[in-house]
Amino acid sequence: MEPTLHPLCEPLRPLLGTWRGTGHGEYPTINAFDYTEEITFSHVGKPFVSYVQRTALVATGLPAHAESGYLRAVGDDAYEFVVSSPTGLVEIHRAVVNAGSVLSIEATSDAVHRTPSAKPVAELVRRLVIEDDALRYDVSMAAMGLPLTHHLRAELRRSTAPGAP
Amino acid sequence: MEPTLHPLCEPLRPLLGTWRGTGHGEYPTINAFDYTEEITFSHVGKPFVSYVQRTALVATGLPAHAESGYLRAVGDDAYEFVVSSPTGLVEIHRAVVNAGSVLSIEATSDAVHRTPSAKPVAELVRRLVIEDDALRYDVSMAAMGLPLTHHLRAELRRSTAPGAP
Repeated sequence: MEPTLHPLCEPLRPLLGTWRGTGHGEYPTINAFDYTEEITFSHVGKPFVSYVQRTALVATGLPAHAESGYLRAVGDDAYEFVVSSPTGLVEIHRAVVNAGSVLSIEATSDAVHRTPSAKPVAELVRRLVIEDDALRYDVSMAAMGLPLTHHLRAELRRSTAPGAP
Repeated sequence: MEPTLHPLCEPLRPLLGTWRGTGHGEYPTINAFDYTEEITFSHVGKPFVSYVQRTALVATGLPAHAESGYLRAVGDDAYEFVVSSPTGLVEIHRAVVNAGSVLSIEATSDAVHRTPSAKPVAELVRRLVIEDDALRYDVSMAAMGLPLTHHLRAELRRSTAPGAP
């Protein structure tokens, strides 16, 4: 039986389900690239939404990035986001959620930590908008000694019914 | 098509698949509890293994803990482990892997970071052993001002074929 969404997560309901689409990545220190992506948001009835995604390079079809984490509703319209990735990074964000006919989430890193062998990233800002059945996001990153700079942009379409697990 | 396991992940092959079982949790500051658990380890051919788990309380059947992360093989028999959880914690571990007829992994936190609203955890040590089709782990934690103290113990059985995605 599908659990009832926690009331604190009600503004996040449009996220729930699986999304597929394509994106474009760039950064001053790398060659630009196009990718396909699948993202799934799910819940178990507690005051958080689970998040997992993976991408593949369009050029080769090979797996590229992956990450997973949790968007926590901590009350008083405040949200926190934690995420880890196989690049060896973990991120702690404060997120601002604006719900309505358009859902927008802006997550700004309080801290980005890394394993000893990972490349250093100083700061990340993630913006996500859901309008109708389109999810668009962009990611800016301060890394390799550069200031906060645009890195990723993608657009995905819902591939499961709204609110499906 | 199932990708070929990355050579650096070969020692981790026994992890791959889905495991189900039960565990017992305790800590000086809480009431002891029993839980059921499902863990899945998977790979995409890159030098890391993805990890996701969730538990439910035996007493109520309700969801309890969840976490997800990545075990990175960084070469020279060195491994790193990153994980995030909806408690608002992110962990960075160095892991020691001993492969053979018994696989053992000991992950010791370099750092545990948290969101502003999360409970503080100072240190975690995770030990995992796979022998035949049994996965056993224990977790020790330094939290709430206490030194490193036993927290979790569980035993799971393989519920998919070895090496299945």
